[in-house]
Amino acid sequence: MRRVKVSNNVIRRMPRYLRKLDELAGHGINRISSSELGEQLGLTPSQIRQDFSCFGEFGQQGYGYNVHALREQIAAILGMDRGLNAVLIGVGNIGRALMDNFCFSAWGCNLLAAFDVNPELIGREFNGIHIYSMDDLAEYLKEHPTDLAVLTVPKESAIAVTDILTRNGIGAIWNFTNVDITGPNSSLIVENLHFSDSLLSLSYFISERKDEEAARAARVERQKNSSKK
Amino acid sequence: MRRVKVSNNVIRRMPRYLRKLDELAGHGINRISSSELGEQLGLTPSQIRQDFSCFGEFGQQGYGYNVHALREQIAAILGMDRGLNAVLIGVGNIGRALMDNFCFSAWGCNLLAAFDVNPELIGREFNGIHIYSMDDLAEYLKEHPTDLAVLTVPKESAIAVTDILTRNGIGAIWNFTNVDITGPNSSLIVENLHFSDSLLSLSYFISERKDEEAARAARVERQKNSSKK
Repeated sequence: MRRVKVSNNVIRRMPRYLRKLDELAGHGINRISSSELGEQLGLTPSQIRQDFSCFGEFGQQGYGYNVHALREQIAAILGMDRGLNAVLIGVGNIGRALMDNFCFSAWGCNLLAAFDVNPELIGREFNGIHIYSMDDLAEYLKEHPTDLAVLTVPKESAIAVTDILTRNGIGAIWNFTNVDITGPNSSLIVENLHFSDSLLSLSYFISERKDEEAARAARVERQKNSSKK
Repeated sequence: MRRVKVSNNVIRRMPRYLRKLDELAGHGINRISSSELGEQLGLTPSQIRQDFSCFGEFGQQGYGYNVHALREQIAAILGMDRGLNAVLIGVGNIGRALMDNFCFSAWGCNLLAAFDVNPELIGREFNGIHIYSMDDLAEYLKEHPTDLAVLTVPKESAIAVTDILTRNGIGAIWNFTNVDITGPNSSLIVENLHFSDSLLSLSYFISERKDEEAARAARVERQKNSSKK
C-alpha cells in the first residue's frame, strides 16, 4: 500500500467510517455521496474527501462512494486483511471480558493465546483460547510470531510485563492498564484505551443539557415575573 | 457556564487536554505555551487556542497557560465538578472490572449502586458498591436522582434494559454493549465505548510499520542487486 504520513486525526476517523459503512450496508444501502456520509458523521464533505485522498482515489465524481468497495478499502488501510496475531496478558475481569465477548477475528486479528500467573487459571480455556503460565510466555513468543499484546494485567504489573514483552520481540501493545508504558525513546507502538475519555465526553453532554434546561427554566421564570408586573 | 454549540471534535479533545495537563502537573510543570502544548499533543498552537476560545479566554499573551488553572477550567467544562450520579447495570466481567478498577470519583462521578438479575450477585458488594436486583431498579431510581446509567449487560438485553432505564427517567447511557441503543427521535444521550476503534488504530500503526520495514528491505535488496552489476 502507498504510505504517506497521515495525521493521527485522520487515522482515528477511519474506524468510525468503517462502522458507518457497515451500518449502511446492514441497511441495504450500496451507494452514498460524500455530503450524505458527512451529514451522518457530523463532518463536512470536503473533510471526508480530504481524509480519503490521503490513501488514493476512492469516490467517483457525481456517483459518490460504493459502500462495499469503500468499506473494503478502509479495512485494508486499517490492516484488517493482514491477520495480525495477538496474545492477551492478564485474565482478570477485563481480560476475561475481551476473551468472552470481543470478536477479535471480526477486526482481522487472531487472538492466539492468553497468559496469567494464577495457577487456577493456567491450563483452562475461555471461548477456545488457552491460558498459559506467564513462565511460558518467552518460549511461546519464540515459536509463534506475534504482532501485538493485549495488556490487561493489574496496574502494579504493567511496567514489568511490558518489559518482558518488549524483550521478547513484541512491538505493539493494546494497553488497558491506564499506566503510561511508553518508555523513553522506545519504538514500542502503544494504543491506550482510555475509558475516562469516553465518560468525560458523556459528562460534557449531560452538563450541556442541564445548563440548557436551567437556562430555559430561568427564562420561563423571568417571563412569569414580567407578566405579573 | 457560557454555552455555545461546540463541535464534537473539540469536545472529544477536551479529555485529552485534561490527561496531558494532569501529566504535566505530575511532572511539576506549572506553565506551558500553546506551541509546547501543541507539540506534545500533535496539534497546532492555533488549533489549541481555537479549541479553548469556544469556552472563553484562558491563556495570557506572552505567558501561555497556567497548568493548574487550565486543568480546573477544562474539568469544569467537562462537568467534573457536578458530582453526576451513576448506576451500573449488569455485573458481568466488564461491569465487575469497572466497579473494581475504574475510579469514577476521580472523574467527578458517583457510582451509587449496581443492578443484576443473577441471584448469586444480588445483595453482594464489590468495592463498596451494593448490587441490587433489577426488580428494584425502578423504585431505586425514584428515590435516588441519577444522571446516567453504565450499561454493561449482555448484548441480548441491551435494548430491553435501555427501555426500562428511559421509562424510569434515565437520560444518558454509557454504553459498553456494542449494540446501537439510540431509538428513533429519542432524546437519550448515548456514549458508546468502541473497543474496536482503538484496536483498529493500533492495527493501522502496526501495518504502517510493517510496510515501512518491507520497503526498507526492498531498497536494501535493490541496492545489493545493482552493486552486483
